[in-house]
Amino acid sequence: MIDREQQVLDRIERQRRRPAKVREERITLSHGAGGKATHTLIEAVFLAGFGNPLLAPLEDSARLRVGDARLALTTDSYVVSPLFFPGGDIGDLAVNGTVNDLAVSGATPLYLTCGFILEEGFPIADLTRIVASMRAAADRAGVTIVTGDTKVVQRGKADGCFINTAGIGIVEGTSDFGVSAVQPGDAILVSGPVGEHGVTIMLARGELDIEADLVSDTAPLNGLIAELLAACGGVHAMRDATRGGVATILNEIAVDAQVSVVVDENAIPVRAEVRGASELLGIDPLYVACEGRFVAAVAGDQASSALAALRRHPLGAEAAIIGRVSAEQPGMVLLNTAFGGTRIVDMLVGDPLPRIC
Amino acid sequence: MIDREQQVLDRIERQRRRPAKVREERITLSHGAGGKATHTLIEAVFLAGFGNPLLAPLEDSARLRVGDARLALTTDSYVVSPLFFPGGDIGDLAVNGTVNDLAVSGATPLYLTCGFILEEGFPIADLTRIVASMRAAADRAGVTIVTGDTKVVQRGKADGCFINTAGIGIVEGTSDFGVSAVQPGDAILVSGPVGEHGVTIMLARGELDIEADLVSDTAPLNGLIAELLAACGGVHAMRDATRGGVATILNEIAVDAQVSVVVDENAIPVRAEVRGASELLGIDPLYVACEGRFVAAVAGDQASSALAALRRHPLGAEAAIIGRVSAEQPGMVLLNTAFGGTRIVDMLVGDPLPRIC
Repeated sequence: MIDREQQVLDRIERQRRRPAKVREERITLSHGAGGKATHTLIEAVFLAGFGNPLLAPLEDSARLRVGDARLALTTDSYVVSPLFFPGGDIGDLAVNGTVNDLAVSGATPLYLTCGFILEEGFPIADLTRIVASMRAAADRAGVTIVTGDTKVVQRGKADGCFINTAGIGIVEGTSDFGVSAVQPGDAILVSGPVGEHGVTIMLARGELDIEADLVSDTAPLNGLIAELLAACGGVHAMRDATRGGVATILNEIAVDAQVSVVVDENAIPVRAEVRGASELLGIDPLYVACEGRFVAAVAGDQASSALAALRRHPLGAEAAIIGRVSAEQPGMVLLNTAFGGTRIVDMLVGDPLPRIC
Repeated sequence: MIDREQQVLDRIERQRRRPAKVREERITLSHGAGGKATHTLIEAVFLAGFGNPLLAPLEDSARLRVGDARLALTTDSYVVSPLFFPGGDIGDLAVNGTVNDLAVSGATPLYLTCGFILEEGFPIADLTRIVASMRAAADRAGVTIVTGDTKVVQRGKADGCFINTAGIGIVEGTSDFGVSAVQPGDAILVSGPVGEHGVTIMLARGELDIEADLVSDTAPLNGLIAELLAACGGVHAMRDATRGGVATILNEIAVDAQVSVVVDENAIPVRAEVRGASELLGIDPLYVACEGRFVAAVAGDQASSALAALRRHPLGAEAAIIGRVSAEQPGMVLLNTAFGGTRIVDMLVGDPLPRIC
């Protein structure tokens, strides 16, 4: 286990000594894909520019102390296209996504803000539908939308509706989660089948000439995570597998905790429809975004109790142990393939699925 | 003085009994202008959809209790065009705007989030410049940007760079600010000359064929407000005069506190360049956005000590007492004109200056 404060100082020092550099002169879609280009942009531009110890852990939310309260604070913008898709819309995505960023940080989500950027000409009926969906998602997750903002830009200067949500949660107990707490011997679990959200969005765009009975997995994970934490004290890190998918999180764990992660392809739950569509797209389902799944690193001797706790909850019914953490080959993610081989799973490169969330 | 909780309940009940209704079928620029159409949209769509007692006061920030801490939480998106203008850019605007929303709520701003929506092709150099400017503004205001998010959309689906910031602050002391605390006999103060930001943006767009030596007034108001509050216990409400300008805030006070506000045109500080450009645009400087000015309602007998406190600070050197609050004609804002007449100052209608912030 690497000391968190030390890790933060190391990251700032590393950036100072050998600054990450964005090679491109202009923003590309890859910079928003959550993979390698996004990480470089964050280190080279945002961490270098804003650089402070609270931002530096680059977790899904920042941990703050305000008075006597320990808080988590997070934000995400949503630019998904299309706005409405099987199983959800940009509204519940914007609520669930921020709820989940707080929940995977070990915080209890409480309050959300919501900022709309609307394009001139956007139908009021669609906006009303999105707001209703946000309200329903907030009620389901037990959070309240307490303040907001609306901006309008001229026709052609946005794409219908973009939403930003920020959220605060309270951190209770003494548990210190985070990728830097992951240790060799930990088991890696995923809370359900991967890639359904991403493939659903691609199908909703009509870009694939197939029909499938898939819906987005968008869901609030705070209830499921609360049950896991109540049942199992050995949870070291959690991240929700959004942009860049499970593969990206595994790489973040490997790099930030300086361990390797070895996963078994056969153990990863993937629906047949997702597998089929991913093959057509030429991408690995491990890189496809989920919006209601998370990856957890759990002390090895508590893996089965963690799995049992997840499976008791409807949102974790298909949870699985997919791999383990090792001290060898730090920084690497290795996949034992279904055919008996082993290959390296790298960070996502490029953006095969733009505007998935 | 109207009881705040009662006012909240009244607003929810009013909305239930006689729901505000958006007459248009589609979003127009007016819905983002901060005036009448924005208020209708907020009441009809957001308040009706999200409706809860924390949102209902519709102040610049929500007041929350988390554990033992009393917090203020706020959010704003920024879509200003052009991104760079004399006196500032979208970066410091995004920091100062959120700092100011917290400060006018009587909170000490602490932590900010920052969400970027970038258009494919946006220059990395511009992004780096904006981030540097956010950092400088955060340092100046004494706040820290602790978490962020970046999304990228395809070329033509946004306009370079949009930024959302959310912010939390701590509420100390027992003061209960808010428009509903405004009382007849209060004096109305403005912290400096009005309309400079809005006119600067119009000039930067080259839409007016005049040259003027104007810069945006964008600035963090928390230092100035802290000095005012330390010097003067009778501050009942503060709002920063952004979209819709001073006139919109005066209308919000008049409607929400059920009072009238009478202002003297001669007393309102307006630079000659702003007055000239406003005449060319055919709008009243009272409706033009500021980004570093606020309006305060202060107990009448403390007006001069409040004014003195403001003037001691560089950002308040040109502060002025511009009017008073009366019990007669509740809901109205009246202007004693420079020519000796009186006219009604209504809520802003339409959007003469789109994307000013």
